[in-house]
Amino acid sequence: MKKYTNIDDIENVPEIIQEAIQLKANPFQFEDLGKHKTLIMLFFNSSLRTRISTEKAAKNLGMDVMVLNVNDAWNLEYEDGTVMSLDTAEHIKEASQVLSQYADIIAVRAFPDLKSKEKDESEFMLNSFIKHTTVPIVSMESATAHPLQALADAITIEELKTKKRPKVVMSWAPHPKALPQAVPNSFVTMMHEMDVHFCITHPKGYDLNPKITKDSTIIYNQEEALKDADFVYVKNWSSYEKYGKILSKDTNWMMTKEKLGNAKFMHCLPVRRNFVVEDAVLDSDQSVVIQGANNRTYSAQIVLKKILENL
Amino acid sequence: MKKYTNIDDIENVPEIIQEAIQLKANPFQFEDLGKHKTLIMLFFNSSLRTRISTEKAAKNLGMDVMVLNVNDAWNLEYEDGTVMSLDTAEHIKEASQVLSQYADIIAVRAFPDLKSKEKDESEFMLNSFIKHTTVPIVSMESATAHPLQALADAITIEELKTKKRPKVVMSWAPHPKALPQAVPNSFVTMMHEMDVHFCITHPKGYDLNPKITKDSTIIYNQEEALKDADFVYVKNWSSYEKYGKILSKDTNWMMTKEKLGNAKFMHCLPVRRNFVVEDAVLDSDQSVVIQGANNRTYSAQIVLKKILENL
Amino acid sequence: MKKYTNIDDIENVPEIIQEAIQLKANPFQFEDLGKHKTLIMLFFNSSLRTRISTEKAAKNLGMDVMVLNVNDAWNLEYEDGTVMSLDTAEHIKEASQVLSQYADIIAVRAFPDLKSKEKDESEFMLNSFIKHTTVPIVSMESATAHPLQALADAITIEELKTKKRPKVVMSWAPHPKALPQAVPNSFVTMMHEMDVHFCITHPKGYDLNPKITKDSTIIYNQEEALKDADFVYVKNWSSYEKYGKILSKDTNWMMTKEKLGNAKFMHCLPVRRNFVVEDAVLDSDQSVVIQGANNRTYSAQIVLKKILENL
Repeated sequence: MKKYTNIDDIENVPEIIQEAIQLKANPFQFEDLGKHKTLIMLFFNSSLRTRISTEKAAKNLGMDVMVLNVNDAWNLEYEDGTVMSLDTAEHIKEASQVLSQYADIIAVRAFPDLKSKEKDESEFMLNSFIKHTTVPIVSMESATAHPLQALADAITIEELKTKKRPKVVMSWAPHPKALPQAVPNSFVTMMHEMDVHFCITHPKGYDLNPKITKDSTIIYNQEEALKDADFVYVKNWSSYEKYGKILSKDTNWMMTKEKLGNAKFMHCLPVRRNFVVEDAVLDSDQSVVIQGANNRTYSAQIVLKKILENL
Repeated sequence: MKKYTNIDDIENVPEIIQEAIQLKANPFQFEDLGKHKTLIMLFFNSSLRTRISTEKAAKNLGMDVMVLNVNDAWNLEYEDGTVMSLDTAEHIKEASQVLSQYADIIAVRAFPDLKSKEKDESEFMLNSFIKHTTVPIVSMESATAHPLQALADAITIEELKTKKRPKVVMSWAPHPKALPQAVPNSFVTMMHEMDVHFCITHPKGYDLNPKITKDSTIIYNQEEALKDADFVYVKNWSSYEKYGKILSKDTNWMMTKEKLGNAKFMHCLPVRRNFVVEDAVLDSDQSVVIQGANNRTYSAQIVLKKILENL
Repeated sequence: MKKYTNIDDIENVPEIIQEAIQLKANPFQFEDLGKHKTLIMLFFNSSLRTRISTEKAAKNLGMDVMVLNVNDAWNLEYEDGTVMSLDTAEHIKEASQVLSQYADIIAVRAFPDLKSKEKDESEFMLNSFIKHTTVPIVSMESATAHPLQALADAITIEELKTKKRPKVVMSWAPHPKALPQAVPNSFVTMMHEMDVHFCITHPKGYDLNPKITKDSTIIYNQEEALKDADFVYVKNWSSYEKYGKILSKDTNWMMTKEKLGNAKFMHCLPVRRNFVVEDAVLDSDQSVVIQGANNRTYSAQIVLKKILENL
């Protein structure tokens, strides 16, 4: 693997899931692989799970890890040809080439600002790093994708499925703040790579980028969509069409125990209780969010392992 | 040891002090014990000594350490049943269970806000972690206790005492800001476990929680209390009765060389010079604050060792 | 080496450069040297390169590293005899002695405030650490010097020179903000230790401290100074005479491809494109800024190695 910024960087999804599950059973098996190798983790946005799980994954492989909150340093310039007389003190060209001197792999988190669809879809921050670094890049969530999360979700489904082709429903939920489409985008993309019966349910106006959803089944009636689900993946996102806007906070879309039926409840966390999902779901055995969060370590670890093997 | 959030988590205080002193003589003796084990240190409040000494203690035992300033991530919700539509983005239930997936031990620092005695005494933050994590918790100072500090103080007294049963005086000092009672609370509790002649001196109105001071001798006349002291432990705290209030900044309570007599001067640091204690004390050989700070490493290390042995 | 806060802490400059180049060829050769040794890195100001390269250098030597952004903790007091009733919560005397308990080497970054020449030249922050710590101090840039940067620059020149005695020109550049003289000061001092033909060019009014420039050739005509240069070191600094002031933002002083001739372009980074230097320079093969940044690791590593060997 040469980088991991999108799911299509994975050559064979079912294979990598199996390898991740094996790694989870024996996390220190490859602790010599990362010896004398450094992972630099760059955060432009705050992080709890991603920070800790990715750092742990790297250390399990014997890597050294350096964490840098970029905002503690200074603002980076991304435009070519700018006269840098204002707020930006360093160009991404220098920053990324310099960091490449100190790191064997660079992981980057950079959220969208949800103001300009064009700008966010250009993935200018992530792509600037990809363009200018001379070492492999791992995305820890970018403007439009969160591939480490989706890989962890795939591992969780694989571990817990009780039939060959389970039904997986991604169900929109209300949220007080406008959130990115990165997590649902990557989840959809990942489901296309798995042997599942997949459908998406959300209020009208919340359709994701059709280039990502492709031929996914989209059902605007939540009850109908959830019928006989084995896994329900709940997530809020802001509108793609009316880009970054909150069109609805309709609490009827909150996930409840009743709606869930016998399905497993999944969520990438953090989750707002009793707004996105009611307590009764999270506090039940059907919730697998903690196991899902644990799998973040192994999704990161299998990715780092694949990249290290290719260095 | 299953956790360390209060001094009564220690089975045998004299024994643990002796073990800590032995550990100090050979800090790397057990560096295999923490191999493949992770300590997550969570800070809700700033820290210098606690951060560095606890991290060092864990690394001396071969542990991996991850430090997280929680305020860099987001606000946690502690109430049950809340509709999380406002400022809190994640419930302690999820946060602590998730962190338990990544850590073998979690250390937490969470100060009181000194506004509601009831709320602070409920130790809602620390107790939420204790309740919801599935790994051992170490307190790096909570609303009402600082047991790692008290254990370090006990080590310092044990190392430096020149008689079997030294006289130890805890003497209140003025301070420009309202400070918690956590340090004096734990110091008092620890002194009850040691073979010392102990008394407390402070202005009227500064009595600590009587459930903690129990039958401690309290003398409102500082001069009388300090007579023939072997160790003087100086510390400010805000009023317990008029909860969190500053009732006095009476500079006569500042510790001076004259008042100190031949005693050793102790303070948990940071200390405000010439307000809490005069330069002449801190700059003399009678001050053992630096040795005391060094013992923070070994109080943390013996605690982590005991917990690791019990995992 | 007992400390590294100024270039004259180096006994033999040409020798240390050669050793650094050897270390670069085999960075993990001495990874047992730092075993059980701790580097504490204290930042009073933000850092990207220095933070990452110094941490990497220490880890290459097998050291443990703890990074502390001091501003996350509390304000330190530097004055003797102060009644600490206001904003400062801890005196440098305690802070530095305490940190000495936890560290084998302490690295400090503390910029000048460029308001009082006298205060900045007193190096009160750095010198307070030197005075009160009981372990070796490494400067990661102080008010008036950046010796790790200058050593990295010396390594870069040594690696790239194609004649025995290359011509090195330090050329002032415009900048939107008032910057310290630390980098140019140390570069000048280092050039005096090397076998180079050295001159400085800057607009009138920008003369550096004459105690530092000593008998350096200073040419106010940039074109004349740059003639036949082998290395051009570009850097902005604020006025030394009219202390901390910006006297000129004359864009004619920006480095261009034309002015550079056949010389190698050096800059300590971060650099503001098209204000300090035009894109055409940075994007050409003549720019050696990335190689220079890489050498920051080896300047730090040779310094830490020398200090570790002397512990």
